[in-house]
Amino acid sequence: MSAVIIDGKAVAAAVRGEVGERVRSLTAAGVRPGLGVVLCGDDPGSATYVRNKGRVAEQLGVRFDLHTPADDSSTADLHALVEQLNRDEGIDGIIVQLPLPKQIDADVIVDAVRPDKDADGFHPFNFGRLAEGARPPVVAGTPAGCMELLRRYDVPLRGARAVVVGRSAIVGRPMALLLLNGDCTVTICHSRTVDLPAVCREADILVAAIGRPGMITADYVKPGACVIDVGITPVDGTVRGDVDRASVEPVAGWLTPVPGGVGPMTVAMLMYNTVALCAARRAGGVPASLR
Amino acid sequence: MSAVIIDGKAVAAAVRGEVGERVRSLTAAGVRPGLGVVLCGDDPGSATYVRNKGRVAEQLGVRFDLHTPADDSSTADLHALVEQLNRDEGIDGIIVQLPLPKQIDADVIVDAVRPDKDADGFHPFNFGRLAEGARPPVVAGTPAGCMELLRRYDVPLRGARAVVVGRSAIVGRPMALLLLNGDCTVTICHSRTVDLPAVCREADILVAAIGRPGMITADYVKPGACVIDVGITPVDGTVRGDVDRASVEPVAGWLTPVPGGVGPMTVAMLMYNTVALCAARRAGGVPASLR
Repeated sequence: MSAVIIDGKAVAAAVRGEVGERVRSLTAAGVRPGLGVVLCGDDPGSATYVRNKGRVAEQLGVRFDLHTPADDSSTADLHALVEQLNRDEGIDGIIVQLPLPKQIDADVIVDAVRPDKDADGFHPFNFGRLAEGARPPVVAGTPAGCMELLRRYDVPLRGARAVVVGRSAIVGRPMALLLLNGDCTVTICHSRTVDLPAVCREADILVAAIGRPGMITADYVKPGACVIDVGITPVDGTVRGDVDRASVEPVAGWLTPVPGGVGPMTVAMLMYNTVALCAARRAGGVPASLR
Repeated sequence: MSAVIIDGKAVAAAVRGEVGERVRSLTAAGVRPGLGVVLCGDDPGSATYVRNKGRVAEQLGVRFDLHTPADDSSTADLHALVEQLNRDEGIDGIIVQLPLPKQIDADVIVDAVRPDKDADGFHPFNFGRLAEGARPPVVAGTPAGCMELLRRYDVPLRGARAVVVGRSAIVGRPMALLLLNGDCTVTICHSRTVDLPAVCREADILVAAIGRPGMITADYVKPGACVIDVGITPVDGTVRGDVDRASVEPVAGWLTPVPGGVGPMTVAMLMYNTVALCAARRAGGVPASLR
């Protein structure tokens, strides 16, 4: 037996197809979804990510409104830009590409985004809704993408033991909360966890969001478990995941490859969020909780 | 060997003493902390809780500004009242006693409280900060009280395995996040968890927030574990916890009794929150994230 390889490219293409459909029907009704993007600083990764997002937006017919304020902008400059996008009727989602230059207080900028235009799902208000167990209007693209993979591959959630390795605010924590809301019994591990392999072997669903290439080997994996690899560490011109595929594939029940697993989902879910926010705000009314 | 019984009455008295000190020094500086309270509906438990809070506020010198709108008030009526308290310079903390009457949209009312006056720590913005791993200005009184008990009894957190049974928005979820932020490896269990006793036996710190009297017996407890009992089910004129004390006391390392464990902490931490919010907003400036 060998793990079912979860085809993130195919699932992402399916999600993009569905989102594109929705963009067409909204646009036909006179409401074209718009994504406002703030790119500030000279981080080379950020430039690549934003380019990729712009390409997908264009494919789907989403308006892509890119702003590139000068590298030496102040917190007040970026705050004013976000406020302008907040007020712009044609902008449904706003993303502030992180990291921002050091002189900028990133919390102030992220918090300034209107919760009902928070395409990245990073605003504390939306994260708070998720943490409470309510269904927030948007969830950060990477964990939302992982959930979509589990759903489309019919991985059983209810009562399953899920172990998330990594407690970042943008992956580990929201992932754990989504799995909890999906009725898993959830454990969150991190650098202080004692005997990590033993804890991981309890998992029916193991999510690795660590950033250490190949760290998760077969001795971390319960036979038949679903292993979701969120790692994307650049190595020699490609990316490597946190999971040692050669070792884990014979043991696991499902496995997301890197590249081609979780990676392609992130941007697809960002577009999904943008269009969902557009529909909620302009073609149906804003949920009461966000007014 | 028998468990150390954690004396919540004594710890709560110590917290109240420290808070009272701070109230006196703020008041001497011309800034008397004020707590605005909204009590609506005929829930008998609510009336008792609010009376108790008023008594403690008076003891500590905190102004207690009680509002009791009519039982048939609308969401708009309560929203207007909360807005009035939001604007009142002399009000530092606002609590809306739950449950509210059925005709009221409780989410709208809770969300309307200014995050920097959110004495209960229930606002999604503050909960989101906690979920992200940031230190929020306030944390809901019951889970904050549990953490205070762990701290004052020197229960080791870093690397400990913590299991929280119950995933409510006001206890289980914030408790799990606080333990995670304290470097525990945290598992959250609930009604869908398979083989709950086995999962609980993994715990160095076991938090029971279920609401089923006496459910947690010795076979749920690892020898030497710290058992925190958040249950307070009214039974025959007293309250009973989720832990079967007679069975668990010989096995556990620490145990909170019911009554006299977690219970007394909740109101003490509410007063702590009110005074902390007062100091932040009126005697030092509001944190940037809350402006």
